[in-house]
Amino acid sequence: MNAIINDIEIIKAKTTKINDVDFDNLKFGHVFSDHMLECNYKDGKWHAPKVVPYHPITLDPSAKIFHYGQSVFEGMKAYKDADKNVWLFRPLDNFKRLNISSKRLAIPELPENYFMDGLKALLEVDKDWIPTNEGSSLYIRPFIFASGNGFHASPADEYKFIICTAPSGAYFSGELRVLIEEKYSRSANGGVGFAKAGGNYAGQFYPTQLAIEKGYQQVIWTDDNTHEYIEEAGAMNIFVRINDTLITGPTSDRILDGITRKSIIELAKAEGIPVEVRKISVSEVVEAAKNGSLKEMFGAGTAAVISPIAGFGYKDVDYELPKLDDTYASFLKKRITDIQTNKVEDPFGWRFEVK
Amino acid sequence: MNAIINDIEIIKAKTTKINDVDFDNLKFGHVFSDHMLECNYKDGKWHAPKVVPYHPITLDPSAKIFHYGQSVFEGMKAYKDADKNVWLFRPLDNFKRLNISSKRLAIPELPENYFMDGLKALLEVDKDWIPTNEGSSLYIRPFIFASGNGFHASPADEYKFIICTAPSGAYFSGELRVLIEEKYSRSANGGVGFAKAGGNYAGQFYPTQLAIEKGYQQVIWTDDNTHEYIEEAGAMNIFVRINDTLITGPTSDRILDGITRKSIIELAKAEGIPVEVRKISVSEVVEAAKNGSLKEMFGAGTAAVISPIAGFGYKDVDYELPKLDDTYASFLKKRITDIQTNKVEDPFGWRFEVK
Ligand SMILES: Cc1ncc(COP(=O)(O)O)c(C=O)c1O
Ligand SMILES: Cc1ncc(COP(=O)(O)O)c(C=O)c1O
Repeated sequence: MNAIINDIEIIKAKTTKINDVDFDNLKFGHVFSDHMLECNYKDGKWHAPKVVPYHPITLDPSAKIFHYGQSVFEGMKAYKDADKNVWLFRPLDNFKRLNISSKRLAIPELPENYFMDGLKALLEVDKDWIPTNEGSSLYIRPFIFASGNGFHASPADEYKFIICTAPSGAYFSGELRVLIEEKYSRSANGGVGFAKAGGNYAGQFYPTQLAIEKGYQQVIWTDDNTHEYIEEAGAMNIFVRINDTLITGPTSDRILDGITRKSIIELAKAEGIPVEVRKISVSEVVEAAKNGSLKEMFGAGTAAVISPIAGFGYKDVDYELPKLDDTYASFLKKRITDIQTNKVEDPFGWRFEVK
Repeated sequence: MNAIINDIEIIKAKTTKINDVDFDNLKFGHVFSDHMLECNYKDGKWHAPKVVPYHPITLDPSAKIFHYGQSVFEGMKAYKDADKNVWLFRPLDNFKRLNISSKRLAIPELPENYFMDGLKALLEVDKDWIPTNEGSSLYIRPFIFASGNGFHASPADEYKFIICTAPSGAYFSGELRVLIEEKYSRSANGGVGFAKAGGNYAGQFYPTQLAIEKGYQQVIWTDDNTHEYIEEAGAMNIFVRINDTLITGPTSDRILDGITRKSIIELAKAEGIPVEVRKISVSEVVEAAKNGSLKEMFGAGTAAVISPIAGFGYKDVDYELPKLDDTYASFLKKRITDIQTNKVEDPFGWRFEVK
């Protein structure tokens, strides 16, 4: 049963849970595949990862993850084409970003082969878990956390790097309405906002709950100093279309450098859509909404792909976006998912076959 | 062997580790007592806590603590006096702050009796672990983390509240030199800096490592927007003495409302020391260091008690603090620890007997 794939040792699960899964009604990140990749940092180095059965993790109560939030993660997807070939989208960018996040969180950086070979071996073992239904995919969650012990507020001496996968449907259901935040914020100048650090997400939950109570699904974060500039959403970068120009904010140490975002910028440029990467003020968006030049807003991220925004709230006023027939959002979503799922040529070299 | 104390069920450990502990050479938060308090949030409510043997925690790899940093904690100490009576210091303030932190992190708030009765029962069971050596105490770590599962970036549906204790010596060893931060920052306006959220600490590790490489032990955080105002240190609030006036910054949504800090303010006032609670600019401190009016700087927190700062670095220049014979730091440290350890009267009603 056990084997080696790409130098990675495989310990196979004795049974499979796949027959319990309703692939036609997948939620997001709710059921998990039979295996996971596990890799430990100990005695000053990362040790070779293994594919092992999906299993619980046992930690001392003093493990630093419980106390000091020392963790980073990534989000990726695997797609299966009509010929059952398996594809990833720009996976090296996720690997590099994981190490960028790790560095900022004082977590030891991971060797590229442990990430890439480990991921490929895991997908090979669990390839039956990759959904083929339109709009579904295998969501991939690489994460690293401090498993070393002790109450001293300092970096741990042991870490675990794990990849789990979850066959998943859409991240948002229904229309997406967002609240532009005036009080709370997501990240500081000189902080960890550009990293996919666990703590960045927990900090968003409470303000997001307040927004949900008011009838929105998401908060659009603004800069923490003036709340005048639009930054990003919970797990999405934000695009605004004013007349025919597509605008998105520049990345900074407060904003995640999204792979979907940068792909959309390139795709739009290649399609002749005018694109501006510059600060977007809330007043500009409100003004554009009032005078009718605001045509679209959408979020962009691996989990949410491209999610059109139907309306936004700001200072107790709600603004509706127009309902257009041909939107940049639907056009670009089709372009990017067609590339991801090997339905069209990939002139950018983004697609990555797992074999 | 099992029992009920204060309504709390006790499951006793079969053996004790206490004979392995060298109470004369305690590090900080490195060895853990025989028992812990464990309390679970499930099906929409907190269930009665139990004192159980210190034991590992088992979680699904998708538990939200690993991904989204949803955790909060507290830091307290228990002291034993000459008559073996056990004392806490302002424990209700820790309880209240834990719930303030929880609320901001979208964690369900804890009932007061689960915290207080649970803590008292735990200390009763492990009272032999409370050190009596000068400068040592039983460090108490209450913490709550998201144990519920799923990759959706939203609050968990299950949590664990745990209290562990660790007989501990001094937090810092040797002289404390600090670096006033010009680039990185700890928290945002509208963020979670005022909460004892796990992620706030991991974000400090990397800049602190950089400071350590330069020969400092700690970073003094400044505001994220201008880096002109002194905020706090890793796990301490900061006091500055200019001439005879003791100054500390006001708390805000970026700064933890330290129990040591507010006790020192009250103690100093009661002793007739002029105290100012106001913003402190870095340039004011540098200027005072240059003209000799800067007499002292110290950090204040439960773990570090009062830790005098011997010198600070700012923009590549090092400033030495004078070596005075009678310092506010040593005077106030003696006052506060004498109250904590029941050596003197407690006119403030801060001491709390565990019985
Ligand atoms: C905060 C944040 N912004 C943006 C994104 C989008 O990034 P990507 O397109 O690489 O998934 C994500 C999610 O990954 C995120 O967590
Ligand atoms: C960030 C921070 N500031 C200040 C303090 C000091 O607070 P207290 O005196 O309540 O321990 C702590 C530690 O508890 C802390 O973590």
